[in-house]
Amino acid sequence: MKVFFSGSIRGGRELLSVYQHLCSFIVSKGHEVLTEHVADPQVEKVESAMTEQEIFARDMALLEHSSCLIAEVSIPSTGVGYEICSAVQRNIPVLCLYRPGANVSAMVLGNPYVALWQYSTLEGLDTKVLAFLISLQAEIWG
Amino acid sequence: MKVFFSGSIRGGRELLSVYQHLCSFIVSKGHEVLTEHVADPQVEKVESAMTEQEIFARDMALLEHSSCLIAEVSIPSTGVGYEICSAVQRNIPVLCLYRPGANVSAMVLGNPYVALWQYSTLEGLDTKVLAFLISLQAEIWG
Repeated sequence: MKVFFSGSIRGGRELLSVYQHLCSFIVSKGHEVLTEHVADPQVEKVESAMTEQEIFARDMALLEHSSCLIAEVSIPSTGVGYEICSAVQRNIPVLCLYRPGANVSAMVLGNPYVALWQYSTLEGLDTKVLAFLISLQAEIWG
Repeated sequence: MKVFFSGSIRGGRELLSVYQHLCSFIVSKGHEVLTEHVADPQVEKVESAMTEQEIFARDMALLEHSSCLIAEVSIPSTGVGYEICSAVQRNIPVLCLYRPGANVSAMVLGNPYVALWQYSTLEGLDTKVLAFLISLQAEIWG
């Protein structure tokens, strides 16, 4: 499946290592991450060569081709919120992951259209992400 | 007009005084701010008595009744991003305001469906907000 991974870029990169772990894990299970730039330590440098309009258009085009969206929502991020809503509007399944103590928006926690998962360990994260991907495959393949 | 004002709550309240100024200014010009709770210093205490689902449902219902959305986007906020996208999807006019030096998301800066304004002073902010509201009224009243 084609996965749109969403995580904070300009909102802060404190969880970059988690983004990298998640993207590697998804790929290791045979799926494609369309937004691997989110896990690239150099993303802001790379994107500084693009216009804001180009970044927006790229991300919305990638979303159109996604089977699902997986977001790490622990760090407040306007872009992540925008992408989650864009996926919901397109009926793309959404899984939102967050750490204990994160002050996650009610637009995520109270949203009936997204799946939620609080994780304390990377192993717990992997288990949930895998279950989410398998459940979608089961739906697609009947 | 009925204005949906959007600003960071759980993402951080450092700009609360700007939110309060904006809401007061909009009201002083004869409009209604449907989301005055965003400018309430006690909002988190008030909302702690609500479920996450109630907060989400309230905000989405208020958006349905809005003539426009005005967002302060200087502080990264997942909820603000979600609300901007929700307004865009409903063809509700959006104005996004930000301070110099704010690291604003490309989902806002590169978004062809929202109006942008960088402000350095509250007077500059007022002028732009008023021009936005007057332009909408001109469209509505022909």
